[in-house]
Amino acid sequence: MSTPQAIAVLGGTGPEGFGLALRWAQAGEIVIIGSRDAKRAQDAAEKIKQRVGASAVISGEENLIACAAAELLVLTIPFEGHADLLKQLKPAIRPGSMVIDATVPLAASVGGRATRTLGVWQGSAAQQTAELVPKGIPVVAAFQNAGAELLNAEGPVECDVIVCSDDPGASQIARALATKIPGVRAIDGGKLENARILEQITALLIGLNIRHKGHSGIRITGLPDAAYKLA
Amino acid sequence: MSTPQAIAVLGGTGPEGFGLALRWAQAGEIVIIGSRDAKRAQDAAEKIKQRVGASAVISGEENLIACAAAELLVLTIPFEGHADLLKQLKPAIRPGSMVIDATVPLAASVGGRATRTLGVWQGSAAQQTAELVPKGIPVVAAFQNAGAELLNAEGPVECDVIVCSDDPGASQIARALATKIPGVRAIDGGKLENARILEQITALLIGLNIRHKGHSGIRITGLPDAAYKLA
Repeated sequence: MSTPQAIAVLGGTGPEGFGLALRWAQAGEIVIIGSRDAKRAQDAAEKIKQRVGASAVISGEENLIACAAAELLVLTIPFEGHADLLKQLKPAIRPGSMVIDATVPLAASVGGRATRTLGVWQGSAAQQTAELVPKGIPVVAAFQNAGAELLNAEGPVECDVIVCSDDPGASQIARALATKIPGVRAIDGGKLENARILEQITALLIGLNIRHKGHSGIRITGLPDAAYKLA
Repeated sequence: MSTPQAIAVLGGTGPEGFGLALRWAQAGEIVIIGSRDAKRAQDAAEKIKQRVGASAVISGEENLIACAAAELLVLTIPFEGHADLLKQLKPAIRPGSMVIDATVPLAASVGGRATRTLGVWQGSAAQQTAELVPKGIPVVAAFQNAGAELLNAEGPVECDVIVCSDDPGASQIARALATKIPGVRAIDGGKLENARILEQITALLIGLNIRHKGHSGIRITGLPDAAYKLA
């Protein structure tokens, strides 16, 4: 797999996707915001352009067009639209591309609490994704714990991004992308099955935010520096 | 509930319980190590005494005797012995006492991996405990993520302890106990049902330790100082 040329942030008009798109645009990446509504995607891209400056290479498209135009697909959609969107996208996913899933199956998706997750049969939203993408497309779980408020604020993001995938090459690309966000350290968290833990940590952090009035993230302690280095 | 006089660390001859007992003995707490085998408990207490010095108030007893002698019961037993021990202890748990559960239902308990957890019907090991203790005994989930290696090493423990309980008073006592360990910050993590996330984080940290050759812990970022203060 070659280094991706463009990052499509699907569901990128939501706060999490917007924050990631902003950070990557700031880092000089080519970003395409995807949305159900092309106009909303273009508006979001315009907002980011105003914030980052004229150098930002960012555009907005309907999800399917954004997907077809990029090799690196980032899912930041509410869980209630997760499986449906993936089914729609499937024919547009290019061979050689990869999917990074930041989706968290919050119980809020079915009218429950954002401090609880739903049980997903496959184990996690990211594993559901792995089942729905075309054969051979690697799936990576990452960015669930880097909250929208942190991403959209100024300054470094005080959060480690744990990256889980069954494809070491795709994991590596996702970690490189994570470290483009100031403050973020990226850690290889092993296999995609561990995504279930990353997703649940988000529910815990949301609970801490409500309880303690903050914008929480996590840092892993006690690992050697090598754990944060890209190969 | 009055301030507990003695802490019984049940299963305290294992590395996690030993580490907690050591840290609390160092902090001047009255500690009773409990074990199936009184002799092993006494040996562990003796080792801690040698390490802490003559001032340490620590003894070793068979689990049931340790339980009956303390108001603060800390469970640090492998999950395969968790329910059985609680059934044995039930008649010895004194009214007015409380239970802190540090147990993690690792799949290793049934011959699987220590990087995976088992599904517990009640949601978590700590919630199983809540079902097995006498009515009115509060249960707190804590210390799952403060690894044995960190506790048994010299120096501060670089880990936050997230404390979950349905009983605010018991949560407060557990947080006070956590902050007696140098380096630890204690955070109110809300209801006992969140124990499932704390337990799974341990499996993630064990995976990181294996993958990156470290002794990992977690820190929560982005919360105000008040989140770490006891009321």
